[in-house]
Formats: sequence, structure tokens, C-alpha cells
Amino acid sequence: MGKMNNPLIPFLEPKRIAIIGVSKTPDRPSYTIIRNLKDSGFEGEIFPVNPAGGEILGVKIYKSIQDLPDNIDLAISMISAEETLELLKSCAAKEIRNVILSSSGFSDRGPRGMEWQREVVRYAKENRMRLLGPNAVGPVNTSNRLVLPFYPIDSIKKGGVAFIAQSGLFCCPVMEFANSYLHLGVSKSIDVGNCCDLDESEALEYLEGDKQTRVIAIYMESIRKGRRFCDVARRVAKKKPIVVFKSAKTEYGLKTAASHTGAMAVDDKIFDTALRQAGVIRAQDMDEFLDLVKIFDDNPIPRGNRVAIVTYSGGVGSIVADACERFGLKLTDLSKETKRKIKPVLPPSTRISNPLDCFSAGIPAKVFHAYRVPLLAFMEAGNIDLILACFMVNRIWTVDVRRLLSELKPLSVKKPIAAWVMGDYQRVRESTEILERGGIPVFGSPERAVRALSALWKYRKLSDRAGRECRRS
Amino acid sequence: MGKMNNPLIPFLEPKRIAIIGVSKTPDRPSYTIIRNLKDSGFEGEIFPVNPAGGEILGVKIYKSIQDLPDNIDLAISMISAEETLELLKSCAAKEIRNVILSSSGFSDRGPRGMEWQREVVRYAKENRMRLLGPNAVGPVNTSNRLVLPFYPIDSIKKGGVAFIAQSGLFCCPVMEFANSYLHLGVSKSIDVGNCCDLDESEALEYLEGDKQTRVIAIYMESIRKGRRFCDVARRVAKKKPIVVFKSAKTEYGLKTAASHTGAMAVDDKIFDTALRQAGVIRAQDMDEFLDLVKIFDDNPIPRGNRVAIVTYSGGVGSIVADACERFGLKLTDLSKETKRKIKPVLPPSTRISNPLDCFSAGIPAKVFHAYRVPLLAFMEAGNIDLILACFMVNRIWTVDVRRLLSELKPLSVKKPIAAWVMGDYQRVRESTEILERGGIPVFGSPERAVRALSALWKYRKLSDRAGRECRRS
Repeated sequence: MGKMNNPLIPFLEPKRIAIIGVSKTPDRPSYTIIRNLKDSGFEGEIFPVNPAGGEILGVKIYKSIQDLPDNIDLAISMISAEETLELLKSCAAKEIRNVILSSSGFSDRGPRGMEWQREVVRYAKENRMRLLGPNAVGPVNTSNRLVLPFYPIDSIKKGGVAFIAQSGLFCCPVMEFANSYLHLGVSKSIDVGNCCDLDESEALEYLEGDKQTRVIAIYMESIRKGRRFCDVARRVAKKKPIVVFKSAKTEYGLKTAASHTGAMAVDDKIFDTALRQAGVIRAQDMDEFLDLVKIFDDNPIPRGNRVAIVTYSGGVGSIVADACERFGLKLTDLSKETKRKIKPVLPPSTRISNPLDCFSAGIPAKVFHAYRVPLLAFMEAGNIDLILACFMVNRIWTVDVRRLLSELKPLSVKKPIAAWVMGDYQRVRESTEILERGGIPVFGSPERAVRALSALWKYRKLSDRAGRECRRS
Repeated sequence: MGKMNNPLIPFLEPKRIAIIGVSKTPDRPSYTIIRNLKDSGFEGEIFPVNPAGGEILGVKIYKSIQDLPDNIDLAISMISAEETLELLKSCAAKEIRNVILSSSGFSDRGPRGMEWQREVVRYAKENRMRLLGPNAVGPVNTSNRLVLPFYPIDSIKKGGVAFIAQSGLFCCPVMEFANSYLHLGVSKSIDVGNCCDLDESEALEYLEGDKQTRVIAIYMESIRKGRRFCDVARRVAKKKPIVVFKSAKTEYGLKTAASHTGAMAVDDKIFDTALRQAGVIRAQDMDEFLDLVKIFDDNPIPRGNRVAIVTYSGGVGSIVADACERFGLKLTDLSKETKRKIKPVLPPSTRISNPLDCFSAGIPAKVFHAYRVPLLAFMEAGNIDLILACFMVNRIWTVDVRRLLSELKPLSVKKPIAAWVMGDYQRVRESTEILERGGIPVFGSPERAVRALSALWKYRKLSDRAGRECRRS
């Protein structure tokens, strides 16, 4: 199914939104929605509803759904679970067919809530309405400046990462962190909450055709329609990488998730196999989740798993070497040609091996070239598929990463390259910003950099296995 | 053996240091040593040596070792491997008995270097000299402001963490990172390099009696005298936690380490068992290494493994619950008393469980109290041994962590407490700084926070098993 007919279109590309149950009290969740939309400069129109009427941030409040103008294509409800059925009836009467349910208190809260959820879903179905949620914050679309969460968001930077989550308060602070710390931009964010109707499969299908989205990041706790999800994921993963982080893997986790969204047990091994068969990359923890999103956002997919590494310390060399073995990357032998290029910039008795420790035989006369020349040589070498640079930063032996980027960038050969930077944090942060804005992702530890690089190779293998064409090669 | 007779005393508490082979060219490694000592305000005297004579940063340069005054208690050599034997002879003639060898080119560089190392060691032994290195940067002692590495260090903050490393360039940038990012202070740093004479066992014995040192962090690639190391570690671990991060675990890692310090293969399983029996905590990667150092630096050791957690999201709750099961912490049931205390500050239909999701039934009227009251209740509860707080930060629902600390701190009960903070990075960083300076360590992910807490419990178990008395209880 293409994006053309996707049921999520009105949820992500609405022209006229009703916000039902707004509060005029600043900082209440419903007030925050209006503020988010105003601050972000949403391109469509908004129609708050509250029986008291009046104004909110300069926007007229309608006293009832009935009073609203026609042609509202989306409503977001801040109304309690108990009153939601009545709300849907009013929406139906007004031909509002798409509703986001923000409140909790449905399948996440015992038999009574479960019954309310069933009634609501039944009514929606009978009246050809589509629901997102309940227990969900509203979606984000940076293309049309839609910022519908009731979470107080300062600003979201545009970019290639789409988030799908079964937990609203999970996604919003993570998005802000990804923006501000990981230098990642967001395309869309879709919270499916308890998934009473629309779920992650429809979200995936929507993102399949979304030109803005380069990588899809999914946080999930359970899966309702497993086969459908895997079918969709298999198709979408051919076009763009999907990274899944699923919690509730353990007894403790499941118990917690069950009380949260009413999640049901999923056999983790079966789920794991299904994902692999669908060509989906799975992250095992939060660090890996964000690391993989970062590496997939803006890197070419490698042809093989042969990595070359430059470091400033034998200790770090031995740590990354361990990581290569653990995560399935091959420390390739450097070719004669590569060695010939590197030799002149390092102290005479340096052993030119992989990982290359530039400082093994003393401090190089020109530290910048001691990194630059090997990195350029690795980029050009036919027997190297991936590159890792481990930098230290201090007041003397520091690499001018801006200059380094200006030399690496014009190269016609494109290979995935990742970095790790150690030293005083102010300096680490400065180098990281320059590197990441220049397209070289930086990771929190040398092992995490290797793990992220290896995920690119994993994606290539999963894609090849299914005889798929690969995104970029 | 007490600290009184420890052979490392002159290396860490020297009064008069000769720096042999200094360069007058700014930014050369030997020049950097003088600058580090001047900048740090080293309390002893320093005597640079170079045949050319003259001055360096206002300090007189002696033309030869022979010309030096008497009673030099430590020399650091920047001389090449080839010339080191001659240097030792000159030192011996001048009654200089303690020498740090900075240069590489010994056991780290083939049979020729190995032979030089053997000759140097033989000569030192015959002449009752002690050697640190080769292939080592000089030590750091923040008590007497000794900053002897040839690494350009801006400043090192005083604190309770001692580093021992078999790789000099590993330790220095890590120390700066620990200072500036992790808010950890350093007591000592001892690079043992290729360990031709003094090694990590003597370093451990020195630190055993060092009042400044609260936790010992060891980075190693191989172990020469395994039994002695384990015996010493067993004794020292009774007094303070030892965290070991050993690389060269895999074939790749070992090959790399061998070319770096001449490391020899160690059966990783045997090593692992030996460490456990000695009561030493092992970190598996760089993140864990620094996380464990952080949690051990300033936390009480818990009586049990019962943890209570407060979060802002069901998703995060389910992630930390998984981590508890994985790392062996017990999600204890909250007592009636605890529930009674918590209930009034949360929205009425909130399910009071563990992990506690303060936002599960809507936004609490007072977010600060929604965190504060549960955390205080957890601190007071008899059935809770460890506490984890997962915070989000934004412009509205943010906890005033300074105020929170002022309420938690005066409590007489002391329990380990860790935190994780998510949201816009500027805000995350601000909260982290306040929390960490206030004694609550903050970790990079919820799983890492749980893993770090579980290491405290692991230390308790290892200590109990050996019938040892525990540091703080």
C-alpha cells in the first residue's frame, strides 16, 4: 500500500485540527498543545474546544464540537476515558473521522478501562472513524510544522529520523535529546499508544513513502498483529533501515509493560527471528537504539565487513580490536600501497598495522597528518569497507577536525566512517559537533562505535540475503 | 605490606625529580612534563637535564646527570631504548635509585627491544634500582600536585579515584574526561607501561594504604604474575572496591596488545574466575569501566538487592524492569506504608507499583512532589536497598534537583541512589551537574544506571562471601 491511501495521512498532514478539552491554564497539557503548534508555526488551522469558550493564546475557543466549522480533518481529544464514547459520537455527527485519544485509563487500567476501549473501537469501526491511541501523545511532522504532543517541546530540528513509539512520554524527551546531543534531525514522530486501531504497521507504511525519512526508529513493548507487522517491515526495510528497540523482554519487564499499555507476552526468541527475517535491525538497549539510529541516518551501506582503525593509544587499539571480534568486523591487513602512504607521516619505528597506533613509537611530528594521511589512505584502499577514527583531544596533540573533514569530504569514494573522541569534555564536545555536523557520527565509547559500524554491515547482509537492492552502495 | 615500605613511594611522593632528556622546544613531550609540573604547582623540586644546558620555563637545565645535586629521589627518562642502559649507569653513579622509563621500543618492539629491556632490568636489579615502565607516562598524585605525564594536561581535580594502567595514553585523556564530564576527582594515576619491574601489584599495595583513594580503577591488557596480583587484590578489595577493565580478551585484541606492550595470552575465563574470587569487580567495556568507577566513588554499599524506581514513563519503566532482571536486582513490592505516603501526590487513579510511573494517570499537579515524595519514602522504607530515579527535563515538568537534594541529603538513612536524565541536552547537563556534585551519580542510559547499582550489590556479595568487613554499610 502506498502512502497515497495511508490512513495516517490526516493524522500527520492535517489542514484543520480540533483540540477537544483544552484548558486555559498555562502549562496544562492541552494548553501546551496549542502553544507547541503556535511556537512551531504549524501551517494549518487549529480549533480549540471548551464549553467555557473564550480565547487561548489568541486563538478562539469553540464551546462545543457542534459549533465547529466543517471540514475538520483531525481531532485530538484530551477527554477522560469514561467520556470518550460521547466525544466520538459528537465527532461523527460533525463528520470528523480521525481522532487521537490522549488519555490513559483504557486497556492500561483494568477490566473497566478495557471495556471502554472495546466500546470506543466498536463505535469507531461502525462509523468509519480511525483512532490513534489511546494513551498517546500527538504526532510530530517537521515538514508541515505539526507539533501535536501535549509534551512541552521547545523546538524540533528537521531531519531524516522517524520515531514510532508505543509510549508517548518515551518519545518526546528522546527526540529532544537526539536533536540537541546526537545532532540528529527528526522527520516524523508517531506515538501509537495502546494501538486500539492504527498501529506501528500503518505507521511503517506511511513512512515507507515519506521522502523526508531516511531511518525508522521503533520503540515497542508488545506486538498485536505480528505477521502483518513483519510483512510490512520486510517490505519497508528494503527501502530504508528500521531499528527496533523492544522492551518487556523479561518477566519484570512484561509485568511492567502490561500495567502500562496492556501489553501481552511475546516470545522474545521468536520475535527476534522474525525481525531478522524481515531485515530489521534490533537494538538491545537504549544506548544501542540511539547509536544505531545515528549511524544509519547518514552513512553509506558498506560492501563488506573489513574495517581499518586509527588510534592514539595501544590500549585503545586493543579495546577496539576486541570489539571488532565481538561484533563481527574483520581487521583487514593493510596493503603495501596503504602502508607506503602512511609511513612518511609517522615516527620511523612505528609499526604500521591495523589498528594503527599513531603514537606507538613516540609523538608524531605533525599530529594532524598522523591522523589525516592514514584516514585518506583507508578511504582510498580497495580492501577496506569501514573506517573508525579514535581521537584524543588536548591543547597540543589535537586534530583540526574541520580541516580533516574538508579533506575527507571531496573524496569520491564513500565509506562509512565513525569516530570516538576522548579527553576534556569541553574539547570532546567541540570536536564532536564539528564531526557530526560534517557527517561523521561520534559514539560514546570505542566499543559502541564498532558496534554501530557492524550494524551497517548487518543491514547489508540482511538485505543481500533477501536479494534486495540496497539503499546506497 | 603496608604503604610504609612500598617501593612506589618515591615514584608518587618524590621531593626532588630529575627529568632527563628535556627539550627546550615548547610542546615536545619532555617540555610538557616541566610545564605540567609548573602549572600544577608541584610541591617538590625539579631538575631538568640536557647537554645543551640553559633554562626551561625559568628552571635551570643541568648539562649531565653527573652535574646534578645529590639526594635526587626520582628520575624520569625521555631517552631512547637504546641509550637507556647508559642512563641507568649514570643514575646509579649518582645514587638515583628510582627511574621512570617513558620511551617505547622495548618489549613492545621485537627481539632487539626485548633484549634491551632484559639488560636494563638486569642492571637495575644488580644495583638495587627500581623501574617504572618502560613505555609509560609518568604518575600523577593530586596530594602533592605531582603531574609527571608527558601528556599535556590542563588540570586535574582532586578526588577519590585512583587509576592504574598498562597504557599511558589510555589513562591521561580518560582522567580528563572523568574530571570534566563524570565529575570524578582523581587521587593517583599510575601507568605501569610494559611492567619490566614494578607492576600493578605494587601499585595496588601503595593504594591500599592511601587515604585519599576510595576506589581503584585498573586498565590492563595482560598479567605477568597472576597469583601475586590476585593475592594482593584480595587483600586490598576488602578495604576499597577495585574495578578491573581488561582488554585483549579476543584473538584480535591479544594480537594488538602483543605489539603494544608485549602482552601475553591470558585465559579469559580463568582470569575472570580469579578476579571474582579475589572480590574484584570486572567491567566488560569502557562504558561499564567508567560507570562502575563512578558508582563506587561515593556510594554506600547496600545490604541487599531490592531496588525501587521512580520514572516519568511506562516505557522507561518497562526498560528498567528488563534491566533489573538482567543485572540481578529485585523489584521489590512497595509496602503499604510506602504506598500510603506516595498516594496523595499522584493523580487519583495512578497505579502505585514498582517501577513507579508518576505520569501514568496524567500529569501530576505538582511534578516536584510526584518525584520527591516517592524518593523520600523509598529512602525510609525498610524493604528497599537501592534507589533509581529516572527524570525527564523540559520547561514545565522538571524537577528542581537542587531542592530535591536538600531534602534527601539530611536523611539519616543512607542508601545508594542513582539517576538517569532525559530531554534537551542543555537541561540534562545542568541537572546532571547538580545531582553529581550533590552525590547522586547520573548514568548515560537507564540500563547503565541499573547495571551500576547492581555492581554495588555484587561487591557486597563478593565481600560477604569472603567474610570480610565492608567499607560502609
